[in-house]
Amino acid sequence: MKKLLFTPGPLTTSKTVKAAMMEDVGSRDKEFVNAVSEIRNELLLLAHVSKQKGYECILMQGSGTFGIESVISSAVGKNDVLLVVANGTYGERIVKMAEIHGIKHLALRFAEDETVDVRTFESFLAANNSVTHVACIHSETTTGLFNDISQIGKICRSKNKVFIVDAMSSFGGTDIPVKEWGIDFLVSSSNKCIEGVPGFAFVLAKQNELQKCKGQARTLSLDLFDQWKGLETNRQFRFTPPTLSIMAFKQALNELKEEGEIRAREKRYKKNKSLLDEGMKKLGFKTYLRPEIQGHIITSFLYPDSPKFNFERFYQKLSERGFVIYPGKLSKATAFRIGTIGQIFPEDVQALIKAIKGVMEEEGVATK
Amino acid sequence: MKKLLFTPGPLTTSKTVKAAMMEDVGSRDKEFVNAVSEIRNELLLLAHVSKQKGYECILMQGSGTFGIESVISSAVGKNDVLLVVANGTYGERIVKMAEIHGIKHLALRFAEDETVDVRTFESFLAANNSVTHVACIHSETTTGLFNDISQIGKICRSKNKVFIVDAMSSFGGTDIPVKEWGIDFLVSSSNKCIEGVPGFAFVLAKQNELQKCKGQARTLSLDLFDQWKGLETNRQFRFTPPTLSIMAFKQALNELKEEGEIRAREKRYKKNKSLLDEGMKKLGFKTYLRPEIQGHIITSFLYPDSPKFNFERFYQKLSERGFVIYPGKLSKATAFRIGTIGQIFPEDVQALIKAIKGVMEEEGVATK
Repeated sequence: MKKLLFTPGPLTTSKTVKAAMMEDVGSRDKEFVNAVSEIRNELLLLAHVSKQKGYECILMQGSGTFGIESVISSAVGKNDVLLVVANGTYGERIVKMAEIHGIKHLALRFAEDETVDVRTFESFLAANNSVTHVACIHSETTTGLFNDISQIGKICRSKNKVFIVDAMSSFGGTDIPVKEWGIDFLVSSSNKCIEGVPGFAFVLAKQNELQKCKGQARTLSLDLFDQWKGLETNRQFRFTPPTLSIMAFKQALNELKEEGEIRAREKRYKKNKSLLDEGMKKLGFKTYLRPEIQGHIITSFLYPDSPKFNFERFYQKLSERGFVIYPGKLSKATAFRIGTIGQIFPEDVQALIKAIKGVMEEEGVATK
Repeated sequence: MKKLLFTPGPLTTSKTVKAAMMEDVGSRDKEFVNAVSEIRNELLLLAHVSKQKGYECILMQGSGTFGIESVISSAVGKNDVLLVVANGTYGERIVKMAEIHGIKHLALRFAEDETVDVRTFESFLAANNSVTHVACIHSETTTGLFNDISQIGKICRSKNKVFIVDAMSSFGGTDIPVKEWGIDFLVSSSNKCIEGVPGFAFVLAKQNELQKCKGQARTLSLDLFDQWKGLETNRQFRFTPPTLSIMAFKQALNELKEEGEIRAREKRYKKNKSLLDEGMKKLGFKTYLRPEIQGHIITSFLYPDSPKFNFERFYQKLSERGFVIYPGKLSKATAFRIGTIGQIFPEDVQALIKAIKGVMEEEGVATK
């Protein structure tokens, strides 16, 4: 059954993106190798940089987390100290990676419903001189908030810290000029706002910082430097790439252009988001976050205050109507999430709202 | 352009396998979650085991190498000693993993054109009591030889060693009864003899050995135990799975059944292989290996002894005719490789031979 995915990814993708997977390609054949080179260049351009400007793009097999672990376990050296600025599950995941790899690290935590306070961050950095690397999540999928990575990046640059950004669910859905914002490593994945299918992550990296990763990696598969060198040497992957996901991604990049680049896509997502907010408010739902800090990627809605509300049933009934939503991940509140990215258009959001209304009525859940 | 892939994978897959990727699925939605459970069960059955018989199946995002690294870096503990029995690139890759993770290890090496000598292995093991784990490649893709993992497994069991098998390019293309052969961990991938598309690896593991992996992993993403626990707890992946590759794989498993299970597939591959050998011999090509140790998955052919032979041009011209072959990886000889697995049928092999003949004539390369 065809379903629309209102999730943080894997997302609804276009028919033509999926159709790009209908021919097998050899992982060392020209057609594929050319596609990889094209993708690597295009991703840099989306971030307003290029090889000539001193930036590199590396594709990494696996999910987004594999890409993040690749950067953390390759870029932070034995004598370096990583500061993780965390306000949600994905920040905590980076802390966990640092622990597992025995990387010296500190964590500066903020409440899940608050963005990173830039002044607190600045003073923390001033008080902890040993810090060499800073990692932060841009769009925290836990809640949907946007951290101000432009300001955090400015501080990192002025203090000479390497800045690592997890822009998993935001890159492609909002403009991120990596050089201007002082970002040294940015990680995102194939199945987010570029609207490809899952299979790999990608890293945009400042070349001089990437060079320092040589021999530092703590794994073979996730060695960021070796992966880059492999792609540079013969334009091929060291290990089997997800060939068809990559062909789909190439088509997805074409379609991003056709839509009118990131600016147009952001506009569509924001329209989706405002229709969602409006419709859900009418149905009596409350958002977990204050609107001022909420991004346009994914929104957390609190469970209605009704004994008749059962999330599993709510989810299942929506799914049967062709709408897939997402469970919550909050530590202190019960909520579910609705994504507004992917091949989702205003009329789809309206259809979702209508379906939610229907399920609520069927279940006898009063929300106001 | 539609091309046939005569490689060790990614392979030529059926139209219907690729068509299974034409609907987006939610990574936490019932349809997908059911597919994952079904796949995990079916893979165990292909190896003549099941959960009830004390075996487990874990899917791992990334290429086959990611699956191998997941096992090596999760199963071999701090006080354990790994013996890698190597006779090619893939054996050496495991040695490299052990080095990177600081795992105590020994390597017992054989020539690239010889299979593992079982008696030498047995004496080596007797002389090295500290060894707790043994890793070996079944079908060494470097050359195409088959190591006798049934005999090696028997020795491992009698000496109480944990036996790890890289059956990347053979599983599904030949019968491997993991329990009978004393295999504790077997690794293969989605884009090999099951004839799915790339995107993930899978591990078949003896449950009591898998239990010992708890807390031992050296990475977050490749933690085999946690990945298993995730799949068991809510049948979902810890991190974004390659949803569409998995849907394709489910279809590939159905088609394996329709073909007549592993027995029928092996028969087809062996037919491909014998037609290839025959045709190439007629054209004057020599195989790198003695036929007795050669598997039916992939074959290494020596470069013809002609100054006019240029592999890049040979490859390119074949590719333009719709046939993708594979470069060599030998340390001491120049060769190219031709795979006989995937959706490749006897008539395709004959067409390849014809194309090779044409290119040879065009290039003026005499082989005899």
